[in-house]
Parts: sequence; structure tokens; C-alpha cells
Amino acid sequence: MSKPIILTGDRPTGKLHLGHYVGSLKNRVLLQNENKYEMFVFLADQQALTDHAKESEIIKDSIANVALDYLSVGLDPERVTIFIQSQIPELAELTMYYMNLVSLARLERNPTVKTEIAQKGFGESIPTGFLVYPISQAADITAFKANYVPVGNDQKPMIEQTREIVRSFNHAYKTDCLVEPEGIYPKNEAAGRLPGLDGNAKMSKSLGNGIFFLMTLILFVRK
Amino acid sequence: MSKPIILTGDRPTGKLHLGHYVGSLKNRVLLQNENKYEMFVFLADQQALTDHAKESEIIKDSIANVALDYLSVGLDPERVTIFIQSQIPELAELTMYYMNLVSLARLERNPTVKTEIAQKGFGESIPTGFLVYPISQAADITAFKANYVPVGNDQKPMIEQTREIVRSFNHAYKTDCLVEPEGIYPKNEAAGRLPGLDGNAKMSKSLGNGIFFLMTLILFVRK
Repeated sequence: MSKPIILTGDRPTGKLHLGHYVGSLKNRVLLQNENKYEMFVFLADQQALTDHAKESEIIKDSIANVALDYLSVGLDPERVTIFIQSQIPELAELTMYYMNLVSLARLERNPTVKTEIAQKGFGESIPTGFLVYPISQAADITAFKANYVPVGNDQKPMIEQTREIVRSFNHAYKTDCLVEPEGIYPKNEAAGRLPGLDGNAKMSKSLGNGIFFLMTLILFVRK
Repeated sequence: MSKPIILTGDRPTGKLHLGHYVGSLKNRVLLQNENKYEMFVFLADQQALTDHAKESEIIKDSIANVALDYLSVGLDPERVTIFIQSQIPELAELTMYYMNLVSLARLERNPTVKTEIAQKGFGESIPTGFLVYPISQAADITAFKANYVPVGNDQKPMIEQTREIVRSFNHAYKTDCLVEPEGIYPKNEAAGRLPGLDGNAKMSKSLGNGIFFLMTLILFVRK
């Protein structure tokens, strides 16, 4: 019998830190060690470019750094499949087809994307790719026939968008080849959050208040 | 010395007819026979799906029909490259990257797309893929480093969008690898238009008033 499939990943926009470990990496290692799932972990470089189009060097450098972080926390390439989004052209192809099944109005209603657009201060210049990224995520999830996607609670609208696309595609093309994924959400997200070195309630890449894995190693060796 | 490159094509949404011959096919055969250009002619099936997502059978059947029409009017696969858009995954990949360089507001300002959206009666459900198709066209044009694109005057905004993307991409990625294409527009488009069998001023696939190539052959044989 085949194992249920889990897909998860990160946008490579910088090194990962202990906040990521507590929030998601630790859980991935546990899931890997349970040996009950087939797990795909990916570096969403194409997605990272949707709001970093002109800082592609950061993304490029971060791919290797995040992959190293994966190994350093105990993800084992013999037991999980680690891949780079941009190296799978089928994901871009699927995105093209899915874009025809989602209306612009539907994309604009996505509450998480709305919040992110406001936060990022795009002003009148929202990159089309950024608005479209939930469709690209649907391609990632469905290409691997993922049954479960462990994500933060803010990602619920993405899973819902994916499920809509699955139903719409299967109906339009009279198939059942696409699988509706389920999100796995943290029950008490705040409790799983590490504060930042600056006292901020959340350790965050963009706030630059993180403890990085190399630093952890140094602290560990000194001890 | 390498020859200038021409890219041209059709959306395979049905058979071509004599109106297409007078309007574009005849000119392609002339360009082919001049032997001064390297020419790529393609079946834009992915683009056709942007407003036919749920009628994919029509698109599928039309691919072979339009390819036959190309051969029947004298396009020679030994001298021009005929290809199917969906079979080149790099075009979808490029579209993903270009989407990050074009704002949603810019897409929504495209006058031709605005007119088409009104005509097609999408209402509140504009498929995202349809709004995005000028970006996908830019991928088609630039992937083949086309210098010239023969199109109708209504396609000027598409060429302008492509040129903007080329400048933006080359600037963002500090390269000159992308080539700015030039449109070749008909001087007197109305004069090159064949009336329909129903008396309408334009022979048109969607009006169903065309003389098809098979019919032409029958008329020719009878004579």
C-alpha cells in the first residue's frame, strides 16, 4: 500500500533560523522519522521571485543555504525528496493551465494575499506573479498528488484555492487525476513561536532577529 | 551572417479559411519564398485555452487541422519551423518569470485585451490566464529571439508589452540576451480583408461564414 504524500517547503529568501526549527522544521523531521508518509520538501525559488524579481541573487544564494539548513536539522535525502521548484518545468506548465480556471476576481479576494500586498507596499505596482502565486502553489501541491500540506493558519486560503482548482480541473477535463489536499494546521500557533533576539514576539527573517543554525552550532561547540 | 528571425502563428480554435489566406497565410508563404528570414510558425494552443479552458477538445482537434491548412497553402516544413506552443515547456517557464516584471495594473490597461474582455462577455469571471496572455505572447516572441512579428494593427499593444518586458528583464538581470521585437503591421488592413459568405464585411471563424481550404479544393476540382 502506498503511503500518504506530504508536500512542504520554504521560499529561499535567506537562511533559516531557530524560529523555523520550532515552527516547522522540527515537525518535518518528526514526520520523516515516523516513516508513515512519503515526503517532498522543496525550495520555492520561483515563488520567492514573485516579490524579489530584481533581487534574484539573494534567491540564488539562499537555495544552497536553505538546503544546508535542511540537512543540518536532520532532514535525510535518503528518506525525503528535496527539490528546487524552478527545476521542474511541469510546475510552470500546470500553472499556465490552472490560470484559465481561476478568475481574476477570485485571486483578488484571497485574504492572505490581500494582507501581504498591503504589507509589502507594492502601491499601484502589484507584480502579476505575486497575485498569481496561489495558483502556482496549487501546481506544486497537485503535481506531487500531495494528500497533506503542513502550513501556518494564514495559509488556509491557499489550500482552499488549491482544492477549488482540483475540483474545477477534474470537472472540466472529466478526470479524477488531481487529488484534493488537506492542510495540517498548528493548533496553537503562538505557542510554537520563538521570540526574536530583539524581544519581538516572533523570530523573523525579515526582522533580522533570528538565531541561525551556524550560530547555534558555535554556541553548542562552546558549551 | 544569420538571417533576421520572424515569429508568427495562430490560435488553433478551428480550421483556417480563405480570409486567413488573404490576411496572413499568403504573406507568410511569400516571406518563406523570399528566403531572407528564418521563420517560426506556431500553433498557440496554450493561448487558445485561455478563453476555451472547458472546450479543450476543440483546441486539440484544431491543432492537426491548422497544421494541415499550413501545408495546404504552401508552408514548407523544410524551410520554416512549425511548432506547437504547449510542447515547449520553456515558454511556460519564461511566462512565470515575466509575470513578476509586469504589474497587474499594466495588464489591465492593455486596450486590446480590454476590448476582447468586453466582447467575450466574461462578466465578473475574467480568467486569469486571459488577462495574462500578453505576457505569454512575450515569452513566445522572445524565446525565439524574434526580430519581426507580422500581426494585425490590433496587436500593437502586445508588441509594446513585449518590448517593455525585454527592457525590464535585461535591466533587472543585467543582460542583453533578450531582443526587442518589431511588429510588421498591414498598411491597409481593411483592403486585405475578405468579406464573409453571409455578406458580413469580414470572413471570420467565430461568425462561421468562411470558405475553408477543403471547400476551395472541391470548388477547384469541379472547375
